[in-house]
Amino acid sequence: MRFARGNAVVLSSFRVRHGGDLSTARRLFGSPPAGWLDLSTGVNPWPYPYGTIHPETLTRLPQEDALEALLAAARNAYGVPAANGLAAAPGSQALLQMLPAMRPRSRVAVLAPTYEEHTVAWRRLGHVVEEVGSLAECGEADVVAVVNPNNPDGRITDPGRLARTAEELAGRGGWLVIDETFADVAPEVSLASAADLPNTLIMRSFGKFFGLPGLRLGFVAGPPALVGSIASRLGPWAVSGPAMHIGVRALVDAEWIVRTRGRLAKMRRRLDDVLSETGLTVVGGTDLFRLVETAAAQDVYRRLGQAGILLRSFERHPRWLRVGLPPTPGALKRLSVELEGNRSGRAAGGRGRP
Amino acid sequence: MRFARGNAVVLSSFRVRHGGDLSTARRLFGSPPAGWLDLSTGVNPWPYPYGTIHPETLTRLPQEDALEALLAAARNAYGVPAANGLAAAPGSQALLQMLPAMRPRSRVAVLAPTYEEHTVAWRRLGHVVEEVGSLAECGEADVVAVVNPNNPDGRITDPGRLARTAEELAGRGGWLVIDETFADVAPEVSLASAADLPNTLIMRSFGKFFGLPGLRLGFVAGPPALVGSIASRLGPWAVSGPAMHIGVRALVDAEWIVRTRGRLAKMRRRLDDVLSETGLTVVGGTDLFRLVETAAAQDVYRRLGQAGILLRSFERHPRWLRVGLPPTPGALKRLSVELEGNRSGRAAGGRGRP
Repeated sequence: MRFARGNAVVLSSFRVRHGGDLSTARRLFGSPPAGWLDLSTGVNPWPYPYGTIHPETLTRLPQEDALEALLAAARNAYGVPAANGLAAAPGSQALLQMLPAMRPRSRVAVLAPTYEEHTVAWRRLGHVVEEVGSLAECGEADVVAVVNPNNPDGRITDPGRLARTAEELAGRGGWLVIDETFADVAPEVSLASAADLPNTLIMRSFGKFFGLPGLRLGFVAGPPALVGSIASRLGPWAVSGPAMHIGVRALVDAEWIVRTRGRLAKMRRRLDDVLSETGLTVVGGTDLFRLVETAAAQDVYRRLGQAGILLRSFERHPRWLRVGLPPTPGALKRLSVELEGNRSGRAAGGRGRP
Repeated sequence: MRFARGNAVVLSSFRVRHGGDLSTARRLFGSPPAGWLDLSTGVNPWPYPYGTIHPETLTRLPQEDALEALLAAARNAYGVPAANGLAAAPGSQALLQMLPAMRPRSRVAVLAPTYEEHTVAWRRLGHVVEEVGSLAECGEADVVAVVNPNNPDGRITDPGRLARTAEELAGRGGWLVIDETFADVAPEVSLASAADLPNTLIMRSFGKFFGLPGLRLGFVAGPPALVGSIASRLGPWAVSGPAMHIGVRALVDAEWIVRTRGRLAKMRRRLDDVLSETGLTVVGGTDLFRLVETAAAQDVYRRLGQAGILLRSFERHPRWLRVGLPPTPGALKRLSVELEGNRSGRAAGGRGRP
């Protein structure tokens, strides 16, 4: 029970290690003199310029018309057909957490390796979860969860294949859950705009692409009855006033969205150059993060952490590192210098080789 | 299904009518030239002076150490014993929504009349809910939900009686759910600081007393295993960055808390004077709202709405009106003038009498 005693209750929420946790980084590595360069997340380093947070978004209960405006903006941005339901939540994580409580004990297939919270959330509520390597291995699963594009390897699952999976699942009362947290930088793979996908829930994250994960805002689109049930379970005032206010402005800003996609793609290419120049093999990713594979991953993680650069390592995949986008050319240079020094150190001392 | 189509999904979240919804008020009454005086909520009209919202609370994922600090502050403010669990959520409403998914089909007794979302949330998930007038009528219920002090009548349930109810319920595996949303202005009735209350969950709202309901922040205290299960279901990053940042500062500000209690009590007495001077009988309430009972309630509600003053009316209690605290002496005067004019109008024209 320790996890729930005192303030240690927090530990239960962090059973899965996540990126972006500088407080844990500080415990591991101390506080770097130059400040942290946090490349451990897949969050856009150039947040949407949200301007001022008006006090009344905090001092008043979130307003019904503000929620309507937010949903209209999200519907337009994601292309959700008028016939489909759409609901807003305090983060796509909150939606992910709800789904396992909405079904009797089910057989759940999670397309893996992927963001581990899907497996954790379904398993926690007693469902039988199997992590599978492809949709062909889903067998007779009642629920299939797919992150598309995938985190951390960027794997893209063909939308047509997903549509067929949806039909198969619906035929036996099952659900297809598509987590499109990173689809803002790969809009061509999104199924949010598909009509008539039976029993399919599409989850979208606001915070990753718009660079505002602290705001807590996410959406789910899908069949009206299913989405309506989710909205009912979320209850009134699920989304904060600031999230409504900032969300609606950002989601209608088509010019910023297009420009940001270009800017992320450009920095991603520069990051790939640095990674390959310093001997790291990029094996996947999206325009919001890159995945490298190296036998020296644990050593690189530790040495860069000691130098104040936080990457994302994976307990279950010790040869992997995920690298987020540096916010500035200077930050990219700092990464380059440390990776280069690390490579020289390893080459000279032979440390970190398995 | 209409509730889940298009943006009308919002309607499903507002099946129960709530205070504070100016967008609906505008549809009913138009936009008053003098601006709305919203007295339809139980929210403190003098919000905690939260200062600046630092951008990094939005641009970073909520940090683990910030959550620990928030929970420590809440634990201290509410007096939660070290042996009890404590979890933070995006609003006490979010906690209320979760509980029905955490039990098999149960018999639920809700001490009524009260905040209707308790009944709605349990019934929605298939539990058998009975609204009862006293704890003595709870019979063999598996779950008992009590709002203490109660909304809207301010009824106080004796903590000792609640403790006995907790023992009885625990004896048959049941839960006692105490919603202490308004206990900040009646700390003597809170059971948040009680140790060894079996199977008892205490819910606290941050937004009402601190005047920041748009922030979405609430807490639940209780047995570690039960609270740990809630924390797990909430998942990581349940609370936004701004909520953590503002919440921790407000909850440790003991001087502000004490001063605000006094200020609310003083304005509540002045409001009572105005209400009784204009012929309205105060039948209950807390220092955050007053309940009046009058045969002319619907007429008063409509006439004040037309004058730009929004009160809270109750579909199931047509003789009731709930009146929140005016933010200024001028606002109190405006209320007084409109209520006086309304009384004269009714006396002269005989309108609005049942």
